[in-house]
Amino acid sequence: MNQLLKGIAASPGLAIAKAFVLKSEEYTPVQTTVGNPELEAERFMNAVNQARAELEQIRASTEEKLGAHEAQIFEGHLLILEDPDLIDVIVDRIKTESVNAEFALYEVSQSFIDMLNQMEDELLRGRAVDIQDVTGRVMNRLRGTDSGNLSQMTEPCIIIAEDLTPSDTAQLNLQAVQGFITEIGSRTSHSAIMARSLDIPAIVGAGAGIRNIQPGTMVVMDASEGVIVVDPGVDELAGYQEKKREYDRRKSVLAQWVNRTTASKDGKLVELAANIGKLEDVQKALDNGAEGIGLFRTEFLYMGRSQLPTEDEQFNSYKYVLEKMEGKPVVIRTLDIGGDKELPYMDLPKESNPFLGQRALRLCLDRPDLFRTQLRALLRASRYGNLKIMFPMIAVLDELLEAKRILQEEKQKLAAEGVELAERIEVGMMIEVPAAAISAHVFAKEVDFFSIGTNDLIQYTMAADRMNETVSYLYQPCHPSILLLIRMVIDAAKQEGKWVGMCGEMAGDETAIPLLLGMGLYEFSMSAGSILPARELIARLSQSEWSGLAEQALTMHGQQEIQAFVQNNKKGEQ
Amino acid sequence: MNQLLKGIAASPGLAIAKAFVLKSEEYTPVQTTVGNPELEAERFMNAVNQARAELEQIRASTEEKLGAHEAQIFEGHLLILEDPDLIDVIVDRIKTESVNAEFALYEVSQSFIDMLNQMEDELLRGRAVDIQDVTGRVMNRLRGTDSGNLSQMTEPCIIIAEDLTPSDTAQLNLQAVQGFITEIGSRTSHSAIMARSLDIPAIVGAGAGIRNIQPGTMVVMDASEGVIVVDPGVDELAGYQEKKREYDRRKSVLAQWVNRTTASKDGKLVELAANIGKLEDVQKALDNGAEGIGLFRTEFLYMGRSQLPTEDEQFNSYKYVLEKMEGKPVVIRTLDIGGDKELPYMDLPKESNPFLGQRALRLCLDRPDLFRTQLRALLRASRYGNLKIMFPMIAVLDELLEAKRILQEEKQKLAAEGVELAERIEVGMMIEVPAAAISAHVFAKEVDFFSIGTNDLIQYTMAADRMNETVSYLYQPCHPSILLLIRMVIDAAKQEGKWVGMCGEMAGDETAIPLLLGMGLYEFSMSAGSILPARELIARLSQSEWSGLAEQALTMHGQQEIQAFVQNNKKGEQ
Repeated sequence: MNQLLKGIAASPGLAIAKAFVLKSEEYTPVQTTVGNPELEAERFMNAVNQARAELEQIRASTEEKLGAHEAQIFEGHLLILEDPDLIDVIVDRIKTESVNAEFALYEVSQSFIDMLNQMEDELLRGRAVDIQDVTGRVMNRLRGTDSGNLSQMTEPCIIIAEDLTPSDTAQLNLQAVQGFITEIGSRTSHSAIMARSLDIPAIVGAGAGIRNIQPGTMVVMDASEGVIVVDPGVDELAGYQEKKREYDRRKSVLAQWVNRTTASKDGKLVELAANIGKLEDVQKALDNGAEGIGLFRTEFLYMGRSQLPTEDEQFNSYKYVLEKMEGKPVVIRTLDIGGDKELPYMDLPKESNPFLGQRALRLCLDRPDLFRTQLRALLRASRYGNLKIMFPMIAVLDELLEAKRILQEEKQKLAAEGVELAERIEVGMMIEVPAAAISAHVFAKEVDFFSIGTNDLIQYTMAADRMNETVSYLYQPCHPSILLLIRMVIDAAKQEGKWVGMCGEMAGDETAIPLLLGMGLYEFSMSAGSILPARELIARLSQSEWSGLAEQALTMHGQQEIQAFVQNNKKGEQ
Repeated sequence: MNQLLKGIAASPGLAIAKAFVLKSEEYTPVQTTVGNPELEAERFMNAVNQARAELEQIRASTEEKLGAHEAQIFEGHLLILEDPDLIDVIVDRIKTESVNAEFALYEVSQSFIDMLNQMEDELLRGRAVDIQDVTGRVMNRLRGTDSGNLSQMTEPCIIIAEDLTPSDTAQLNLQAVQGFITEIGSRTSHSAIMARSLDIPAIVGAGAGIRNIQPGTMVVMDASEGVIVVDPGVDELAGYQEKKREYDRRKSVLAQWVNRTTASKDGKLVELAANIGKLEDVQKALDNGAEGIGLFRTEFLYMGRSQLPTEDEQFNSYKYVLEKMEGKPVVIRTLDIGGDKELPYMDLPKESNPFLGQRALRLCLDRPDLFRTQLRALLRASRYGNLKIMFPMIAVLDELLEAKRILQEEKQKLAAEGVELAERIEVGMMIEVPAAAISAHVFAKEVDFFSIGTNDLIQYTMAADRMNETVSYLYQPCHPSILLLIRMVIDAAKQEGKWVGMCGEMAGDETAIPLLLGMGLYEFSMSAGSILPARELIARLSQSEWSGLAEQALTMHGQQEIQAFVQNNKKGEQ
């Protein structure tokens, strides 16, 4: 039965293999009375200890494979197994009510999960998923059911599951698993994030349709498109096998570009940098040949915790990245909280339009304590590499001047304390508010560089929330109005001898790159996976030719026209 | 005791008079047993009938003074007195429980009010205020307390009250009442709206401080600034009296400008139009010398009701305004719902950033039924005056072309039905999305006119919600980035021989007007009260001089600098 299904492209790649169906068994234990409750409690604790040993092992192997940060989640899981509110209560229940361990475990853990699921706080609701994962593991040990099959598979396969827990994902045998497909989940699910870290294809949120996939059926997953073909016909299969060979070939071609410098056909040098959002991303950036970090989002330091990070915590993170990049430029953006990113412990007022509210630098200027701590940490870390500090969400000059004044004050304080700082630290700003783009000529006199944040710039210029599906048709990076703003920014910076980068999605878009190169963009910062294709593309483009072509594009009326124009002219260059 | 208080400037003007303190008495009736419940029920119905007679009278006089629309609220009040769920239940209660009428009235009405106050729906919560107002009136009649004192005052006075109900406001003796000050309320409270309609000074939300004002104390209220001076000193009082004479003198000077055409000192003709949001505003526009309607907001037709307005209802409203304006231009904007304006009965999805969501034309293109009905009503009304149709919130060309296509289809359908239409109907668009301003040269080929909606244009260009207090410092009409966008729009329109108007607050701002005149804006549409000062100002300005000065202003770095520059140069012109 040939069948086509669609899901969310969560981690790119193409895989062809037999389905390994992971049934998530619905198991509700029946209450029974046990003759020897002491013995039953002991049986329960044995299961807990076995689960703990498994988790220790998963934690260690995850740390080895993916790094300390990814392994942290299992430290959380181990703590759950120490929690007296959970474990002691279950033991008590077994002893006082003489019930079977499975029942006591189910009843107590479920009441926890139900309670947490009703919470407003997303962190607490995330906690429910963790408890489910851990207690499920204990239940498997109690029942003697095998949870280890995921790591024991040896044949190449594609995993089909309702969802994958963190421990499921960590246990995947990467020699055998070609990719996975889940029924539920989104691009930001834990399993999706893990898949991208592990660099294996994943499609999530594919819906109930995948329940019909029989174990052993041949499955094709094109995870770059989110397409799943179940039991393909002979010709279709051959077509996908050809496509996969092409994909693999392309991957090995791109690998040759890792250590080259980035230059256009006519010798114009530009810089390809990576956007990173956590410490583990640095390695991936280097693996993909990043010539710098064009955007280090510092929000991860503030999120998923219960209080503000200390100056030292921040210092250590910044130092880590700067050292790891060994003198390559690292642009660190000061806190961009607010908007769609909330910090429960900061108790920020609810806003009707958070994207148009007190976010990023606006909040920092209102909360100088917060801001100064981050600036001090940045300044102290500066001597460990090539630090550039970048302020987000600036609309008017006064905001920039105030931010620079505070930075200068902290610099002087640190100098007075005898702290060693880098000799030169570039200070720049994001261009993401239309007012800043239009007034770029004013700002250019006051900064060392601009970085155009296209995700927000497009959202504000089009007055269309980039997270709102009903207006997503207005998210048009190649719309003439966006290109005109970008050109204004680049021209204004050139006038003052400053460099311009871009750190929105657009910088890695293969249709936008020729235009951006033509307009004179210097630094392109993107997700690590886009760097090599961009480097290869740029080597095929003539900067001077695209300078003229970009001018032509700017006179056009809509994105579609411009995209077609770029495609046509790119072909000519090959 | 000389005292300075601050409140919200709700309706401008300066008043000096003795305080008339309206105590809002907290009265909770005690339950007593009555000997003759039949007689008690009769006493209750007498009070109801007296209240009805009063309301009839208020309704009639309000209609006479302020028009049918303002009087509508009292029709709602009269209906409450017919409501069997309220009145019959109270009568029943008196008869079956032999309780006093006051107690039954209080108990039954309070349970209604409490219930409505718990509702999510704002309309229903508004209903609670109405029931409170009406049942309070019946209670006064039952108790023989005087609610008529408001209309019976004869000495000049300033009313001091916790809040004014619609019926309080309607009963004000305008011969005596110089203004009013309330403890609670906002600029959009019913009392604030009424005050603006009645053209009497009002300050609302002045806080608990006004409770200390003793009856008969001299009070100065500068309602243009929201300042209240209680018991001013002799010199202070003299100062305010002088200011009031100046204010009155200015008012009579301005009155001379009502029937003049608008022209700059060097003879450049421009048009001063009014923004209106309901039918009653037309008269006020004409009274203030409006040369047209630059923005007729059609949302009022859709709000405060339980279903969509019919084509005929809309037709009648449009026809009314067009006829009343006797051939003067009337720019009617198609529905701008969404954003901060909700329609409960349309059940629109909740958006995280409604200002960046599916509002205005975006919604209309998604709901062509809604849109076509409005367009048909507009087209049918076109032959009754000088109609210009305007589309809001356009960001990209495709949206405009689609709106024009639908309009053309409806035009053809009506023509086929034999409906007579105006020979020429101009079609224009608002410029309020930055993308539209930047691409104005593209749009200019496709429209007859632009109208710059500065409230939204500023909000999006600055990425700052105009309703959000924490980012209100970014609402800068004279910021160079805003002025540059405006100039781009005007230049683009000129290139194609099209005219440009402005219908945001900025069009009536006396600092902005010289710059806008200088840049070549043709139509200035503002609230009616700003028209005469604008006309007088423009007559003192040389368009050609300000053309040069505006160019200079565009090179400056911030709003403050530009504002000071305008002030200096305006002085020179006097």
